[in-house]
Amino acid sequence: MTRNQNQAVFEAGIKLGALYHQWVGTPISRRSAASVESAIEQAVILQPFVEEITVRLDRNLMTENRFGYSELSGLMFDVDIVTRVGFAYCRARLAPKDGYPLMQIMECHDTPSLSRH
Amino acid sequence: MTRNQNQAVFEAGIKLGALYHQWVGTPISRRSAASVESAIEQAVILQPFVEEITVRLDRNLMTENRFGYSELSGLMFDVDIVTRVGFAYCRARLAPKDGYPLMQIMECHDTPSLSRH
Amino acid sequence: MTRNQNQAVFEAGIKLGALYHQWVGTPISRRSAASVESAIEQAVILQPFVEEITVRLDRNLMTENRFGYSELSGLMFDVDIVTRVGFAYCRARLAPKDGYPLMQIMECHDTPSLSRH
Amino acid sequence: MTRNQNQAVFEAGIKLGALYHQWVGTPISRRSAASVESAIEQAVILQPFVEEITVRLDRNLMTENRFGYSELSGLMFDVDIVTRVGFAYCRARLAPKDGYPLMQIMECHDTPSLSRH
Repeated sequence: MTRNQNQAVFEAGIKLGALYHQWVGTPISRRSAASVESAIEQAVILQPFVEEITVRLDRNLMTENRFGYSELSGLMFDVDIVTRVGFAYCRARLAPKDGYPLMQIMECHDTPSLSRH
Repeated sequence: MTRNQNQAVFEAGIKLGALYHQWVGTPISRRSAASVESAIEQAVILQPFVEEITVRLDRNLMTENRFGYSELSGLMFDVDIVTRVGFAYCRARLAPKDGYPLMQIMECHDTPSLSRH
Repeated sequence: MTRNQNQAVFEAGIKLGALYHQWVGTPISRRSAASVESAIEQAVILQPFVEEITVRLDRNLMTENRFGYSELSGLMFDVDIVTRVGFAYCRARLAPKDGYPLMQIMECHDTPSLSRH
Repeated sequence: MTRNQNQAVFEAGIKLGALYHQWVGTPISRRSAASVESAIEQAVILQPFVEEITVRLDRNLMTENRFGYSELSGLMFDVDIVTRVGFAYCRARLAPKDGYPLMQIMECHDTPSLSRH
């Protein structure tokens, strides 16, 4: 793997770890979910090396407590992110898998001839 | 002070303390500030006893780091909140004072004849 | 209620709301729980108007995910806090009630003759 | 780069991003700094693929506000982490660089003959 590809993978990990712990615990409901999705996307896209970010929060898990709302929890996240360093790209994902909010590398690639010359 | 007024004050404190620590550290810029303001307002209004919430984030403090963004810090907040328990109301505020993000009770009142009968 | 008592209640609310949203989501296990309890107590006691703070995290709720740990959730908290403003005191609590992490004022009192003269 | 090495890099990024946003904003002082360092280390070591973690918080930046404490900010962190996936290792760091809390890959290596057979 090239140095750039290495860093693209690293940056994808940073952003997923960061957004998870920044927003977990936020009061949320089906009505407010879209505003939180948008705020997360707009916060993440500001950070270095982020090319694309899509955040979907699972409304089905937003069961209401006795005050009529829920809390953003790890299993609600479905996040797709693309990072780029030079000509190297990494696409990664945060989504539930077997009851755990799993972060995974989906694909990486570099264009070595371009990135080296 | 009536029992209801007491709780209205307590609830205002809870909500200000909560929102501060939930959102401090969020990557932010002048372009994304409105989306964060809206997400905070929509999250806080879900919580019990909140009647009104207005969040303004000070764009002047959003100086760009070398990657072109900033982080939401305590001094950026100007938040006005109204809580209600029965017929008791409390209005409180989070705003910078002498370089500290101060939370203050602005006014409280109850309508005892209504709340007791 | 005196002005000081009013503020003691407000400060108790702030501290409980703040600690909840600061620490929810922290990776935790039965082995590490004591260190998190201690860190929370030491962080809260630094803040203005806090006289006493006791944090107990419910080990029984720390069921292990497939990687062998858990996440600090709202229902794990049992927190007792005493705030003081002048000669007014407020004792408040965060603890589970009917499946909700409830924050409640337990008792408040002032010594008006001392606080006014 | 091998698949394992790829993931070791990714996991290092996740953990650094996560810890930053989990703990930024925590009330802190020189007296309580050691307890926060320990709590962070004990939380991070629980997570999958983490082999070693060392957290140092810069006491020199803990200037007291008018209430005598400070808030944990990004530039206070000096974190060294080692992740392992199979026989692949990654060492990464979070530390201030030119006024920015930079996360960097320090070194990665794999033992391909062992990890493939």
